[in-house]
Amino acid sequence: MKNSELITSKDNPSIKLYRKLSESKKARKENNLFVLEGARLCFDSSTFPTIKLLIITKTAYEKNREKILISDDKIMIISDELGNKLSDTVNTQGVFAICEIPPKTELSDFVKCGGKYIVLNSLQDPLNIGTIIRTADALGIDGVILCGCCDLYNPKVIRGTMGSIFRINTIETNFQALVSELGLKKITSFAAVVDKTAQSLVDCNFSGGCAVVIGNEGNGLSESDIELCNKKFTIRMHGSIESFNASTAATIILWEMSR
Amino acid sequence: MKNSELITSKDNPSIKLYRKLSESKKARKENNLFVLEGARLCFDSSTFPTIKLLIITKTAYEKNREKILISDDKIMIISDELGNKLSDTVNTQGVFAICEIPPKTELSDFVKCGGKYIVLNSLQDPLNIGTIIRTADALGIDGVILCGCCDLYNPKVIRGTMGSIFRINTIETNFQALVSELGLKKITSFAAVVDKTAQSLVDCNFSGGCAVVIGNEGNGLSESDIELCNKKFTIRMHGSIESFNASTAATIILWEMSR
Repeated sequence: MKNSELITSKDNPSIKLYRKLSESKKARKENNLFVLEGARLCFDSSTFPTIKLLIITKTAYEKNREKILISDDKIMIISDELGNKLSDTVNTQGVFAICEIPPKTELSDFVKCGGKYIVLNSLQDPLNIGTIIRTADALGIDGVILCGCCDLYNPKVIRGTMGSIFRINTIETNFQALVSELGLKKITSFAAVVDKTAQSLVDCNFSGGCAVVIGNEGNGLSESDIELCNKKFTIRMHGSIESFNASTAATIILWEMSR
Repeated sequence: MKNSELITSKDNPSIKLYRKLSESKKARKENNLFVLEGARLCFDSSTFPTIKLLIITKTAYEKNREKILISDDKIMIISDELGNKLSDTVNTQGVFAICEIPPKTELSDFVKCGGKYIVLNSLQDPLNIGTIIRTADALGIDGVILCGCCDLYNPKVIRGTMGSIFRINTIETNFQALVSELGLKKITSFAAVVDKTAQSLVDCNFSGGCAVVIGNEGNGLSESDIELCNKKFTIRMHGSIESFNASTAATIILWEMSR
């Protein structure tokens, strides 16, 4: 154990750090750390290598001892009471972790010839972003690229990914730099638009590499960002419906990319 | 106006009825009424015929007067303060309605030869159900059939449909009765399962009529319900992901049914 004694105080430095990391993007950037909550996420084998400190209640530790494949010096045991205070949820499992943000990849290394990428441009809802990352992982997309979105390491994004954050490649970058890189790698960029005159999604050819760009939940993509893309398409809808919500549209697009 | 004076009391009988209808399934069944909140929903042309009473704050009434295509005796104007109390949301638009539940269709009239139906079996999350109804409508599915789900007229379901509840055919029925009716109409029933050995979704033939059955968010379909279906299929996933969430899976299935 990191400390042989049971931690009960919210003034413990690691507890204070956990709180700061869960609340502040600035703190995450400065420390290069982010936080996780939940047994399923923290005990996943793909999570362990990134864990700097596992913070776990006494009850949860005793219940899950054999699942914790991590060295003792990275474990801190806290009282159940402190666990309740630390938690984001009503019924906490009492399992928390402070993890290292993986080293940044260069955009030129990230984008590979023939790869299939989903690009999130100015999405702001962390749950949408998390769900899209999870779906992209489940469908075998090569990477998720975030341009001007909310912080990838926001705890709500992380929770929504259900662990996919540790499995699929992700990068945060600038949209114009991305477009140049895609051009160099001869990857066709597609803008998803709401425009009945645009090509239909089902007629798009995503083979041989593609980057599909999805815009903000309320406003979609800006005209100038649409023009930076090679092609545009729309999801044909029935009757009078104005549009799908962002995460429904993303699911359909990811499915077609991988189909 | 129903009343020339401005209603300010939460003891007004219509206000009391609105509250009861929004809270209790029993009250909805007994009165054959349900409630709506929000300008977009209440002012939609497909909503007006079902409205028994539009409850609107003075401010909202003055702002939206020309949008309200409904006879004066069906309008009740309330104080902004009462509107805030009535609302389910933080920033209310001050527009509410009490609507009539449409007359029940017989299952034998609802299910048509060659139709495409999505069947929700024991889904419990009202937001999931609402979103699925919205997506089914957008994709031109012929009807949504609920078996053992939460109440279709739950305000959270209604809000999630974003008005699709007034456009797409829906019915609540018993699963065994449904299976018999589908058999009579020669409609193939498909169970959506999480089972790597099952046929892949992309190999299913949904032409000539189909009813695709989706199970509960946590537990999926029961073995006995799967056996009642003609066929089963799975959505092939990449790597180690266990499953999509219910609404992501439903989106992919609806898309393939309509593709």
